[in-house]
Amino acid sequence: MPLPLNPNMAATFPPPVMEARRWLDGVTFRADRPLLNVSQAAPVDPPPRALREAIADVALNIPEAHLYGPVLGLPALREKIAADWSGAYGGQIASGQVAITSGCNQAFCAALATLAAAGDEVILPTPWYFNHKMWLDMNGIGVVPLATGDGLIPDPQAAAALITPRTKAIVLVTPNNPGGVEYPAETLAAFYELAKTRGLALIVDETYRDFDSRSGAPHALFTDPDWADTLIHLYSFSKAYRLTGHRVGAMVASDARLAQVEKFIDTVTICPNQIGQRAALWGMENLGQWLAGERAEILDRRAAIEAGAPRLAGWRLLGVGAYFAYFEHPFALPSDRLAQRLVAGAGVLLLPGTMFTPAGDAAGARQLRVAFANIDRAGIAALYDRLAAFTP
Amino acid sequence: MPLPLNPNMAATFPPPVMEARRWLDGVTFRADRPLLNVSQAAPVDPPPRALREAIADVALNIPEAHLYGPVLGLPALREKIAADWSGAYGGQIASGQVAITSGCNQAFCAALATLAAAGDEVILPTPWYFNHKMWLDMNGIGVVPLATGDGLIPDPQAAAALITPRTKAIVLVTPNNPGGVEYPAETLAAFYELAKTRGLALIVDETYRDFDSRSGAPHALFTDPDWADTLIHLYSFSKAYRLTGHRVGAMVASDARLAQVEKFIDTVTICPNQIGQRAALWGMENLGQWLAGERAEILDRRAAIEAGAPRLAGWRLLGVGAYFAYFEHPFALPSDRLAQRLVAGAGVLLLPGTMFTPAGDAAGARQLRVAFANIDRAGIAALYDRLAAFTP
Repeated sequence: MPLPLNPNMAATFPPPVMEARRWLDGVTFRADRPLLNVSQAAPVDPPPRALREAIADVALNIPEAHLYGPVLGLPALREKIAADWSGAYGGQIASGQVAITSGCNQAFCAALATLAAAGDEVILPTPWYFNHKMWLDMNGIGVVPLATGDGLIPDPQAAAALITPRTKAIVLVTPNNPGGVEYPAETLAAFYELAKTRGLALIVDETYRDFDSRSGAPHALFTDPDWADTLIHLYSFSKAYRLTGHRVGAMVASDARLAQVEKFIDTVTICPNQIGQRAALWGMENLGQWLAGERAEILDRRAAIEAGAPRLAGWRLLGVGAYFAYFEHPFALPSDRLAQRLVAGAGVLLLPGTMFTPAGDAAGARQLRVAFANIDRAGIAALYDRLAAFTP
Repeated sequence: MPLPLNPNMAATFPPPVMEARRWLDGVTFRADRPLLNVSQAAPVDPPPRALREAIADVALNIPEAHLYGPVLGLPALREKIAADWSGAYGGQIASGQVAITSGCNQAFCAALATLAAAGDEVILPTPWYFNHKMWLDMNGIGVVPLATGDGLIPDPQAAAALITPRTKAIVLVTPNNPGGVEYPAETLAAFYELAKTRGLALIVDETYRDFDSRSGAPHALFTDPDWADTLIHLYSFSKAYRLTGHRVGAMVASDARLAQVEKFIDTVTICPNQIGQRAALWGMENLGQWLAGERAEILDRRAAIEAGAPRLAGWRLLGVGAYFAYFEHPFALPSDRLAQRLVAGAGVLLLPGTMFTPAGDAAGARQLRVAFANIDRAGIAALYDRLAAFTP
């Protein structure tokens, strides 16, 4: 007799990044054309030496760094985030409104676990971030897709038309994964007003905000003294300080919300890992200048992506920013089959739009995501060479 | 307008360990009678120096230890667990049947997420481990309590009578938290047969198995070549190597189950943290002798608990083992109020049976858990002095 299987979990698609990696099985790459892997948004280099030394020092000399800590995170890190965010966004954020999580994915799951149960609905602009879709699917929460069209910027009025009595939240990711686009402050303001008026949570995932091309605050949401009644803000330390393997993220929300979040984190992981939290704090305190250099490098790569795009006949660059370029391809082939052919045919691993859109979505079938942050200008030139030469 | 709140989350009780810590607020302790904290099952000392040095070395010299790794964990750690468990339990466990998780709590949540949805049922012997209860509550999964009586050993026949068409799993914790008792191999065998016959999952959480007083395998479940059709085995690295702050646990289950678990872990934390996994592996490879010493020390403290129990007039020691002693107290006061009075009245922080039993449970109101692993013989003597002198 087979063991029970949660039907919601069975209906959840497998992790796209892992699935794409399996496309590499059995494929050999020519020595003069090694694989260009632009599938995952992750640094390929470790943190700078000084941060690694700080981590080693913590491991050796801070006994508490090996033991359980507070469920909602290291007080000093919560205070630092509250102070820095308050300054950066021009609002008042208290340390009690900050929770540290085991990565930003967990921040999203924890927030949703406090908001919605099976049968409820959440609005996700498409193309979406696939782990958001997976969490909602495995919990039986209805995903209401909000198509963004060629501009990739969601329309608040279109969202308003999708709200039902079961809607609990609207989720925005800016700069966007997978689309790369930086949402205008007015777009965020309009979504915020919509959520506030309709009694919904507005979740804003700013995992990639350190690589935003604009200067100053990307939005004014925190300047509303009542922001905590509507806004849930998510952040990741993975990209800024190359700490992907440490699993440290953050959520900013009301005290009351975090009292619910505390139940979730206590139950799922008890606390975030202690060394990673100290690494994140050290990064915030010491790597501001270094991070500015990282951002400049990413913006230079972005410029290379934009400059090269016209080389691809029939392709369109729909969005670019932070770690991502999002293309429309000209082929009759759907993007999932195209992406698999690109592995052997071009030595390129990227993710198809089908992984970011509902099953059968016509737009997704024409789209491809390139996570360009990990390849330099030479790599970007090679990428364009290969894509320009490719025919399915 | 208040933000939406998942009613299942609202109905979930807050983290007991955090709640108990709040009982300390405003209480001052006399210099000659400092707080004896026996509330949490956690080492208070860091890992041995050699392991901390190994962690520091990893941080400095292993670049991948800072980056994303496989969702289901470090291959070398999965292989080591498969090899060691196969030997220890006398069965065949492949590395593909091992997943590494961000602590053992996450292993439980991941397993359950693949088994049960809202409206399903899971059988938990009482007193239960509170985070198990919390996960089921926040997911709207029905908890069916299986009372164990004074012996604290669950009865398979009583469990059989509780099975309904909605039952998906039976959960056993051995050595037990909070009860301390080591379940006899025959008990586990009978539950295994019951689960197998009825098409349920049997989840066996052996977080504390390194401190079992018995020699040899504590059960023969893995000797059934078809174990993977029924059994899901959970383990924690937190206690053995004092790695609570690193969040590393493990699950052993069928390949098919782990393909579902992979969806959960990818979505919630992407991967377990990389340094903690390497610390766990280093511990398995190098700290066998050290762990044997730790176990001997815990068994000595257990003996001190057993020897001192008759000093408490009217109290009964219902169970003792691994990190825990579980007492029945003689007072008319319910255990939650009693536990709060013990803070100021005896300088002792422990958890009441009410935290491990259903609301209104008569047994839970008479019971108290003492996590004695963190106090030495002198501390145990002081604990008994204080409890013997205490009147509510």
